[in-house]
Amino acid sequence: MKYELYYWPGIQGRGEFVRLALEEAGADYADVARERGTAAMFKVMEASGTPPFAPPFLKAGKLVIGQTANILLYLGARHGLAPKAEGPRLWVHQLQLTVADLVQEVHDTHHPLGSSLYYEDQRAAAKKRTEEFWSERVPKYLGYFEWLSEGSGGSYLTGRGLTHVDLSMFQIVEGLRYAFPKRMKAFERKIPGLIGLHDRVAGRPNIKAYLASDRRIPFNEDGIFRHYKELDV
Amino acid sequence: MKYELYYWPGIQGRGEFVRLALEEAGADYADVARERGTAAMFKVMEASGTPPFAPPFLKAGKLVIGQTANILLYLGARHGLAPKAEGPRLWVHQLQLTVADLVQEVHDTHHPLGSSLYYEDQRAAAKKRTEEFWSERVPKYLGYFEWLSEGSGGSYLTGRGLTHVDLSMFQIVEGLRYAFPKRMKAFERKIPGLIGLHDRVAGRPNIKAYLASDRRIPFNEDGIFRHYKELDV
Repeated sequence: MKYELYYWPGIQGRGEFVRLALEEAGADYADVARERGTAAMFKVMEASGTPPFAPPFLKAGKLVIGQTANILLYLGARHGLAPKAEGPRLWVHQLQLTVADLVQEVHDTHHPLGSSLYYEDQRAAAKKRTEEFWSERVPKYLGYFEWLSEGSGGSYLTGRGLTHVDLSMFQIVEGLRYAFPKRMKAFERKIPGLIGLHDRVAGRPNIKAYLASDRRIPFNEDGIFRHYKELDV
Repeated sequence: MKYELYYWPGIQGRGEFVRLALEEAGADYADVARERGTAAMFKVMEASGTPPFAPPFLKAGKLVIGQTANILLYLGARHGLAPKAEGPRLWVHQLQLTVADLVQEVHDTHHPLGSSLYYEDQRAAAKKRTEEFWSERVPKYLGYFEWLSEGSGGSYLTGRGLTHVDLSMFQIVEGLRYAFPKRMKAFERKIPGLIGLHDRVAGRPNIKAYLASDRRIPFNEDGIFRHYKELDV
């Protein structure tokens, strides 16, 4: 089965967490809006019996699945990117949902007053939110995942086997490095386990090939992870 | 099996979405931190092999399950509050995750600059964020769920059978009425389907009994839905 991924064509955004899973799995997929434009995306959104609230969504045969973590729940079960037993499966999904919460907070560093307003119209608030993000939230979230990596008993967050959460954690590290190079550089010494994890994921053959391809959209200031100099002090 | 729900004792918060499911199901559960204090909660958080990032979490036998939507995924399957087939199950979970996103945005109306800061220190930003929330986000989210209710072909959001998403939508309506009585009063004429759904849920025997009991914590200004007069204009 060839999957169809639907997401905004110009950004990594939330779609990237799905792309990384599809690429690691070596799955056959089309990145539809990149190939055929957003009109094709809106058409599926409106016509589906299970219309997603927002991209990304995945068409898998007759299923149309929205919400990033939900897509990964589906793909994880099919491509060996999550455990099969109920307890471990719920655990991995729980971690993916915690990643989703962190991603939302990353977004809010540059859009604290609302996603419909321009960044330029909420700069002062963005500075305050970013301060709080780095003083309170990053230590809490990344400290939690670092703690898990220390106790995992394997090369990956939940043990010996790679899951989609590891792929997402790679993306978190990449994104924070892009958006906040100075802050992240100073912080990385506190998370050696996650940096090691990042490097192991980056070295996996399928991920390595993907990152070197033009399927990997460069980071930019329309996505989740945005670099604004004044927020990286 | 007697479940153990762990959540902050003084508020409805995210725990309430779990409580409503447990109550509707007539499940046997202890609300541990309310009965024995938060120390008992932190103890389980730290000792678990699958430590949740934050409350709420549910202890079900040996499983410790965090993230509200993940808990409902688990309970839904066990108590007839979600479909069993894969497609419909993913669909209901997707909707629950969309509710979770809305809940986060409700929280951010009063804490746009960060959850570690007092409301009093972010009043001006809260006003702006609340304006954007009501002009852009409420119409988008509730418009989406209203549209689904119109096309559901049954009394509930996804058809003839009640799911945990219906219980959550009841709570969204209740919460918005509490936090923003004036704004919500003006908005309700646009969502007759959701108001009808709210009333049907409120009239279900187990929910009715729960709402009348002292197990239902009153809304207050420490939870997700907070009433600040200056934000309700």
